[in-house]
Amino acid sequence: MIETIQWVDGTVVMIDQRRLPIEEKFVTCRTYEEVAAAIRDMAIRGAPAIGVAAAMGVALGVAGAAEEGLDGQMETICATLAATRPTAVNLFWALDRMKRLYAGLRGRPLGEIRQRMIEEARRVREEDIAINRAIGRHGAPLVPDGKTVLTHCNAGALATAGYGTALGVIRAAIESGKRVDVFADETRPFLQGARLTVWELQQDAIPTTLITDNMAGHFMKSGRIGCVVVGADRIAANGDVANKVGTYSVAVLARENGVPLLVAAPLSTLDLTLASGDLIPIEQRAPAEVTHVFGHAIAPPGTAVENPAFDVTPARYITAIVTERGVARAPFETSLQQLAKGEPK
Amino acid sequence: MIETIQWVDGTVVMIDQRRLPIEEKFVTCRTYEEVAAAIRDMAIRGAPAIGVAAAMGVALGVAGAAEEGLDGQMETICATLAATRPTAVNLFWALDRMKRLYAGLRGRPLGEIRQRMIEEARRVREEDIAINRAIGRHGAPLVPDGKTVLTHCNAGALATAGYGTALGVIRAAIESGKRVDVFADETRPFLQGARLTVWELQQDAIPTTLITDNMAGHFMKSGRIGCVVVGADRIAANGDVANKVGTYSVAVLARENGVPLLVAAPLSTLDLTLASGDLIPIEQRAPAEVTHVFGHAIAPPGTAVENPAFDVTPARYITAIVTERGVARAPFETSLQQLAKGEPK
Repeated sequence: MIETIQWVDGTVVMIDQRRLPIEEKFVTCRTYEEVAAAIRDMAIRGAPAIGVAAAMGVALGVAGAAEEGLDGQMETICATLAATRPTAVNLFWALDRMKRLYAGLRGRPLGEIRQRMIEEARRVREEDIAINRAIGRHGAPLVPDGKTVLTHCNAGALATAGYGTALGVIRAAIESGKRVDVFADETRPFLQGARLTVWELQQDAIPTTLITDNMAGHFMKSGRIGCVVVGADRIAANGDVANKVGTYSVAVLARENGVPLLVAAPLSTLDLTLASGDLIPIEQRAPAEVTHVFGHAIAPPGTAVENPAFDVTPARYITAIVTERGVARAPFETSLQQLAKGEPK
Repeated sequence: MIETIQWVDGTVVMIDQRRLPIEEKFVTCRTYEEVAAAIRDMAIRGAPAIGVAAAMGVALGVAGAAEEGLDGQMETICATLAATRPTAVNLFWALDRMKRLYAGLRGRPLGEIRQRMIEEARRVREEDIAINRAIGRHGAPLVPDGKTVLTHCNAGALATAGYGTALGVIRAAIESGKRVDVFADETRPFLQGARLTVWELQQDAIPTTLITDNMAGHFMKSGRIGCVVVGADRIAANGDVANKVGTYSVAVLARENGVPLLVAAPLSTLDLTLASGDLIPIEQRAPAEVTHVFGHAIAPPGTAVENPAFDVTPARYITAIVTERGVARAPFETSLQQLAKGEPK
């Protein structure tokens, strides 16, 4: 069992995803600023895991805050955590949840507030694992038996509190008796596929083959790929999906070759305030992520770079969005609304 | 002026493309076996450059061969060079050309044979530069002014004897007064885009932005890309194109976004003996190219890998094939035949 993030004795302990698979090192955060830095620097990444980290960051911040001016401190804590990464909406969802709890606790003794915030953050983590198992149960029947599943980036245990969203669907398919193997896109520039997905699936002895991102189309054309499963960082009301850069390319290639594309994500990834994916803010990260690999230059000095961390896949390329409450299909405006409200489909 | 490969004082001197852009080192080959190793290990790469290297390798082999049993030695020389890399047809084209010359020289004094073989190899190199300039002239009018040109891999001066095929079209467009900048896919696993294309275009002060392969779709969707220009390693009679792995993905994304895709290649890249691209042999290279970058592991030990060096882009995705005799368009069966025969179109 991979422990991505845990609350341990008044600290937040995360496996350092910048060093995997070379080293299995842990980062211990003792302040909310350290949690914010861990999110910003991608010691922890993956939309659901960032949500858990944000909730625990708030709990850590309130635990370390003085009684005087607590409201202002709470605002600073949430603003600091909110400023770490712009695209994954789970971050803002988790902060809103902690803010709502805090608002309901006003006037209570500080010790009780601190205790309740910690309990809530731990609950966000535990719920996430249960949610991912439910996503897996709903998604497993959609995975073709006896074929290869292609995945992009890491939407696994490491991107969540455990089990994973996209990799949770693969795990659940295998647990249900299906024989599938996995093709993992390496996912430049941060190499989440090569470093994290391959490592994580090796722990579970799930047969996995690493390919470079530009090979995905070649293998989809070959007929070997039964479906593509990816996670999501934000899903607009119309079903457009922001996810790791390269997801759009994989989606176009999947449709061109008649391969179903499944997006696996908790309902906390939905942003029904945005009509379409065009409105999702796309984070631009540092050029050095592209020009250097593990500190080694792969391009000449002075190379100009674009480094959008995410792209938007229009809903028309998506076969199904798999959530903990069930599977949404086109028209997504309706199906996502129904799932969000908890209506039966 | 970048000197990719030259005949210097009875040796073949190549810039070492495995070390660029970190080091500008040269490899000096004194035997045909050293030329074969340089091709196999990718000290030199790019279909036209491999053709020149093969021709020079034969000349070097004959220069070092004994008079007795020369025919058998010639066969061994050609077989050794032919076994280096299977996909780029220019290799076999150059060997055939040297074999034809050799057959015509039978019975001549050894000194004359050697001299004529060297002259022919040098001519292959010189012709290649002239061919690329002609490709550039034919391609330049097809490049939209004021937009970004996306290219994949390196089909530049470094992939040829000079000027380049795809990058030759870009150079010619700029020489004709068009204002274009370039987006270069980094081109994993060997990083020809990041290491070679960016370096080469920097030498010419052509504004170039490096992106990871998986970002190409995102930028094509953004409307910023005016056209895609790539090279080719082998073109079948129906216009299907084998080129660096990832070209197929770029082609599908280009068509999906209404972006023209130009393939720039000399007629020596045509293989009219193959009815379609399905018949083109695709080289599989070592897993370490994918699992390691400059010797640094990016995946866990024991990772399974697929590493096809090329993929095949069906002709239906290709807007035009630009050759030294003119531009072929669909139906390619007819247009390529006409160009091969030297018929006016």
